[in-house]
Amino acid sequence: MVVALLTDFGSKDGFVGAVKGVILSFNPSATLVDITHEVEPFNILEGSLILKAHYRYFPKGTIFLCVVDPGVGSERKALALTGGDYTFVGPDNGIFDLVVQDLENSVRVFSIENPKFMLPRINSTFHGRDVFAPAVGLLSRGLPPQELGPEINYTKRLNFPAIEKQGRFLVGEIIYFDRFGNAITNIPCGEYKRALFRDLDLRIVDHFLQGKEGELCCVCGSFGFLEIFVREASAKDMYGIVKGEKIKVELIS
Amino acid sequence: MVVALLTDFGSKDGFVGAVKGVILSFNPSATLVDITHEVEPFNILEGSLILKAHYRYFPKGTIFLCVVDPGVGSERKALALTGGDYTFVGPDNGIFDLVVQDLENSVRVFSIENPKFMLPRINSTFHGRDVFAPAVGLLSRGLPPQELGPEINYTKRLNFPAIEKQGRFLVGEIIYFDRFGNAITNIPCGEYKRALFRDLDLRIVDHFLQGKEGELCCVCGSFGFLEIFVREASAKDMYGIVKGEKIKVELIS
Amino acid sequence: MVVALLTDFGSKDGFVGAVKGVILSFNPSATLVDITHEVEPFNILEGSLILKAHYRYFPKGTIFLCVVDPGVGSERKALALTGGDYTFVGPDNGIFDLVVQDLENSVRVFSIENPKFMLPRINSTFHGRDVFAPAVGLLSRGLPPQELGPEINYTKRLNFPAIEKQGRFLVGEIIYFDRFGNAITNIPCGEYKRALFRDLDLRIVDHFLQGKEGELCCVCGSFGFLEIFVREASAKDMYGIVKGEKIKVELIS
Repeated sequence: MVVALLTDFGSKDGFVGAVKGVILSFNPSATLVDITHEVEPFNILEGSLILKAHYRYFPKGTIFLCVVDPGVGSERKALALTGGDYTFVGPDNGIFDLVVQDLENSVRVFSIENPKFMLPRINSTFHGRDVFAPAVGLLSRGLPPQELGPEINYTKRLNFPAIEKQGRFLVGEIIYFDRFGNAITNIPCGEYKRALFRDLDLRIVDHFLQGKEGELCCVCGSFGFLEIFVREASAKDMYGIVKGEKIKVELIS
Repeated sequence: MVVALLTDFGSKDGFVGAVKGVILSFNPSATLVDITHEVEPFNILEGSLILKAHYRYFPKGTIFLCVVDPGVGSERKALALTGGDYTFVGPDNGIFDLVVQDLENSVRVFSIENPKFMLPRINSTFHGRDVFAPAVGLLSRGLPPQELGPEINYTKRLNFPAIEKQGRFLVGEIIYFDRFGNAITNIPCGEYKRALFRDLDLRIVDHFLQGKEGELCCVCGSFGFLEIFVREASAKDMYGIVKGEKIKVELIS
Repeated sequence: MVVALLTDFGSKDGFVGAVKGVILSFNPSATLVDITHEVEPFNILEGSLILKAHYRYFPKGTIFLCVVDPGVGSERKALALTGGDYTFVGPDNGIFDLVVQDLENSVRVFSIENPKFMLPRINSTFHGRDVFAPAVGLLSRGLPPQELGPEINYTKRLNFPAIEKQGRFLVGEIIYFDRFGNAITNIPCGEYKRALFRDLDLRIVDHFLQGKEGELCCVCGSFGFLEIFVREASAKDMYGIVKGEKIKVELIS
């Protein structure tokens, strides 16, 4: 069974190792895969977005452990969600908003409350290790999620920037930068007549090499959204793009 | 069998991949888990601390390969330690001081000397790959550690900062910063009346959200020590904390 | 079957996770090992060098997925190479030049063209996930590489800096810096009388601790090349070394 991990723990302090140690203590045959541990600290929205971009590429049955958790130890619930042949485990703080939106009708949500399925001593700063990891280990061995605690309703918690329709245009914004400095928008891939950004009319191209040196272009990117790029360079650095900047695309029909 | 790796090799150069390639050449069914490869270069004490913080969360039987090794190729010995149902492999430079202190009576130490269990060509700059990885691969397949070389005594090599009792107070210091900028002290978690840092009387709280915005607080942290934090921010950056700064806690009774 | 991954995807955005999800969807029992994902963006030569340094340490049969791919989505071919009991999958842009040079006579090259072995929807910015990962998953389950597409000839594409023989001397240059700040040259390890760098006559030593504090020395390094180092410090930072700087060694006989 694949267990995929997404956190803001970073790679230096060994926190991810401890989480994996606990999962393997409960299920020695789990296959562990890292999605990322470099989510900006406390940035739930960013974690939510990266999860949304990639989860569908994992095998059916994959369990996702997602911990960006500034409220660890407080009254916020711990969740196990099922939906679309996947299971998601993590804090009730919005990190699952985008996948719940994707999978809406199939989603069931359970509040992890049964101390029988947690480590005997719970540190209030590290539920990833002491609460979530045991749940994930046991789920990956076949524990039904309803054993973990009562079924509840999902409550959305993030204000994910929405796109707006203005006549023949969609207006969106820059929501993320990837490692290459590509500026990812919240406008889904699709057929558009043109893209307007700042005072520029950007070419929408099929792949990166169609951009000219230094030219700001648009492409359907790896996150499933339109993204702004410069060929073999960082659009972010070269043009000083910042999150929240608007982009406008004209619909074909 | 789980093999957990802790090094200062970083993630860019491929050194960790080569080590894993060798381990899997000796034992294709080993389960490899990274603790960290981002130990500050040559910082044995930091490696020792991260190992100590997390090793108990791994399954019994786990083999830890720990390589922070500025003396690679010199006369320093190569060690395989057993204790507490774990095995530890790495250089004889103090990196195991803290786990040996933890596991004291159960520890046995072997000096890895038998060239039969090393790669045929040993590069004097990369024993992680050429000496330690073969040993780990073979141990994970059941080779008894005494086959690797003679049993020896363990010699402590680090001066890990000690806490000091002054009447009703314990005096410790900042020894590490985690990725979130939390300042980890060498004072073990416990019940304390108050914590004094610089000229501040810090609140000792149960979890991060009990801190107020910008307030420096204390909590029992993920390393098992008291740590100083600022809610959803970096205590290190916001207050310019440096390693070695003193902290004083008052005992309850 | 071991699948080893080398990319310039970085560790933050989740791209590597998506690639692994796809591989595991095709072959749930693949053993995934990261070589690096921190190749400098678009730096094919650097990826080529790191692959060359480490691939021989992996078990026979290992499949290497290597994606540094600024031309993704363009007309550049997708390759599966076999040679020396290994398989290599990635773009036709020179990333395999150095291993092909190593394995020359045993190498066979296939152009991945059969859409039956790709994801149904191919994003032109992410062939790592949509084209290469399915191929790797299937190859690791035993698909013969000729099923992927026609056999072709390999074309070298990089200008890897060559060493030059000048009488009793070899002249090479700095080609890479590792995480410790060691300056790796393109001069293969061997017996040399002396090493000349800038106006210095560098000692060639057996291991790092033979260097004195602050002294620039030479050693046979972990990449299999001579490297310039400073004991427990960064030669790069301490001496401001840059890529392309020349180094000259005198042959013994």
